[in-house]
Amino acid sequence: MAKGLNVAVLLAGCGHLDGAEIRESVLTLLALDQQGANVQCFALDRDQHHVVNHLTGQAVEGQHRNILEEAARIARGKILPLSEADPKAFDALVMPGGYGVAKNHCGFAFNGIGADVAPEVLHFVKAFFEAKKPIGAICIAPALIALILKNTGQSAALTIGNDKGTTAALKALGADPQDRDTARDVVVDEALKLVTTPAYMFDDARLSDVFVGIERAVAEVLKRA
Amino acid sequence: MAKGLNVAVLLAGCGHLDGAEIRESVLTLLALDQQGANVQCFALDRDQHHVVNHLTGQAVEGQHRNILEEAARIARGKILPLSEADPKAFDALVMPGGYGVAKNHCGFAFNGIGADVAPEVLHFVKAFFEAKKPIGAICIAPALIALILKNTGQSAALTIGNDKGTTAALKALGADPQDRDTARDVVVDEALKLVTTPAYMFDDARLSDVFVGIERAVAEVLKRA
Repeated sequence: MAKGLNVAVLLAGCGHLDGAEIRESVLTLLALDQQGANVQCFALDRDQHHVVNHLTGQAVEGQHRNILEEAARIARGKILPLSEADPKAFDALVMPGGYGVAKNHCGFAFNGIGADVAPEVLHFVKAFFEAKKPIGAICIAPALIALILKNTGQSAALTIGNDKGTTAALKALGADPQDRDTARDVVVDEALKLVTTPAYMFDDARLSDVFVGIERAVAEVLKRA
Repeated sequence: MAKGLNVAVLLAGCGHLDGAEIRESVLTLLALDQQGANVQCFALDRDQHHVVNHLTGQAVEGQHRNILEEAARIARGKILPLSEADPKAFDALVMPGGYGVAKNHCGFAFNGIGADVAPEVLHFVKAFFEAKKPIGAICIAPALIALILKNTGQSAALTIGNDKGTTAALKALGADPQDRDTARDVVVDEALKLVTTPAYMFDDARLSDVFVGIERAVAEVLKRA
């Protein structure tokens, strides 16, 4: 149990195709609560890259949604703009996945290894690395980590499951991707205190397996806080 | 374990103020998967009553969202319109809460005991009662049950926690509301095979307590299927 540890959770919206993966987000909050951590959710206060109809998978023309307002659906209103986040107030950071991470927090979904990272996200995540505080990165969030560590000389051991294209991109960014074949697994980079789990990188993963991976990832994060 | 049982999950959108309570929905799906059930999600294919900004709690003028498309965010696209649901194909029904149940599935949030129930929802839920198949109703969903059973002479034992106003309304509808002081509790009506748990009727409930209640509710439902 990790009574009293304060953990920041960064949400990229609300919906796996244009925002935070909802299930990963809820299960992250559940695991953190079950393991005794205090949680504060944050999100960027700006429009998401686009809005996707989750029934058809198609982008919706002319619709705008604010990342913070949408993430507030998962957070039940208890969420703050990332601009108000003080990394010093937290012992650890956990980032659920979803395309929002690769569309709103950085441009990985569109520009791959040439993508930029949103400056607020970059500064926030870097502060945890610099303070040697643990970071949990779920699903596609390790790609954001690899972009942030690009050209730093730090090669993060991490997993995004076993997707070949993403693995090649992570290698090109200087990371050390490790194949995993189930959402139940985690990879820990001891030097960086980085914990990763594939979750819905396996699109057809069982929800109970996703939770096993997230439970384990959260435990490994809290252990290092 | 309930291998092979088929369970319908009815979602009222995506967000506790205008749709399905996201956390209750995800934890319902998690508990069903952990306990070995097969799940199919359904939602009404029509616009939600309104759209609420979950950061401010205020309704957003002039915005429209489709219940099925929003619920698809939780269901990761694996969801069908309720009009295509055949109750005979399912062994049980579980309904997570959220204001969407009281705004989209019936008018309880606006008209209290005088509210109508959406016809598709009415017919679907009634089919489970008539076939003596178990129903799980979470959070405010018991109010929908009470509206459906009004004037049938069946007084359902159920819980919505201990909210005085809602309890009075349920009594006026002919139900038998039982106070519970924690989201961890469930109430079972053996004759009706109705299982209820308060979940976020306790607005400040711990997520881990909400999950305990939902896990128990799902277990009681599957046991009776």
